[in-house]
Amino acid sequence: MLKEITVKTRSRMEMVDITSQVQEVVRESGVKEGICYLYVPHTTAGITINEGADPSVVRDINNTLRKLVPPDAGYAHLEGNADSHVKTTIVGPNTFAFVEGGRLRLGTWQSIFLCEFDGPRTRRVLVKVFSG
Amino acid sequence: MLKEITVKTRSRMEMVDITSQVQEVVRESGVKEGICYLYVPHTTAGITINEGADPSVVRDINNTLRKLVPPDAGYAHLEGNADSHVKTTIVGPNTFAFVEGGRLRLGTWQSIFLCEFDGPRTRRVLVKVFSG
Amino acid sequence: MLKEITVKTRSRMEMVDITSQVQEVVRESGVKEGICYLYVPHTTAGITINEGADPSVVRDINNTLRKLVPPDAGYAHLEGNADSHVKTTIVGPNTFAFVEGGRLRLGTWQSIFLCEFDGPRTRRVLVKVFSG
Repeated sequence: MLKEITVKTRSRMEMVDITSQVQEVVRESGVKEGICYLYVPHTTAGITINEGADPSVVRDINNTLRKLVPPDAGYAHLEGNADSHVKTTIVGPNTFAFVEGGRLRLGTWQSIFLCEFDGPRTRRVLVKVFSG
Repeated sequence: MLKEITVKTRSRMEMVDITSQVQEVVRESGVKEGICYLYVPHTTAGITINEGADPSVVRDINNTLRKLVPPDAGYAHLEGNADSHVKTTIVGPNTFAFVEGGRLRLGTWQSIFLCEFDGPRTRRVLVKVFSG
Repeated sequence: MLKEITVKTRSRMEMVDITSQVQEVVRESGVKEGICYLYVPHTTAGITINEGADPSVVRDINNTLRKLVPPDAGYAHLEGNADSHVKTTIVGPNTFAFVEGGRLRLGTWQSIFLCEFDGPRTRRVLVKVFSG
């Protein structure tokens, strides 16, 4: 079954740690060993797994992406969010993590982040947990 | 079972919307709820999910990738497509989407694109649909 | 069941071809048709699939990533590896490949690489093989 996580973002670019919400979906699924798939049904937001302990890491990720793909670089797409689409393709709109013992099998420093590239908005993340 | 989609590209860099071809593979699979996995068995082409409504979005994605990874930047690989390999790693050679009610569960604006980085060529996309 | 591959890296940035180790996990799993999932439980290392025949390709990938995300660019994260975190999000910490006839169904030129962005270190790659 497909579950949905809702995330309210507060700025144009923001990485929101959704690990505990994903963990909760895994718990509710009752799956002990398997895979948790995450999918962002948007075209100006992505998802990544990176360090969650030091908030400066996500700041550096966002600053670097902003430098590489600046908001205002003479794009063809005229809605003012061309850069957000490009960032989404660089970061990617989906990911997965393993499930072990009924919990996400993340690395010690890993957290799961929704990457907002055109906020503030209300975003959704679709989640499916496979047993196996 | 593994299915194959064939895509003929017409220029060096091009994003080809393959959503309807993928949708057709999902339909033929008979899977109602599950996951559709997509895999590009090439090293100079990738796959992404992004906006399909306004063609200027894919133009901006390609222009930005060309600016970040120019074709001619003194690469070690001497086949003239070193940049195409780099772009493939940035965009990625595989992706997935959920299946609901026998159809791809994409977001409103999402389309699936084969990303040609060293065309024109005939490319293949491998597809598998899991029920679950 | 979750298997683990161990990779010892020898420099700060290095792409290590782990295809044969992954192939071995697939063989041991006994799965004939299915999917092999790969997951890096680190925040300064990624995984990609690209050309393994000519070593200059991985050199170009690393040189380009170093140019786009230089080690020393005034980052907020003060552990000296902010760039490694950014590269991990650009390349991604997980991937998958299909299994056919008991072997990885890679393209002719494709190899699977652990991407070290903050070595030298001992890295792990988690592997799961699904039948289907």
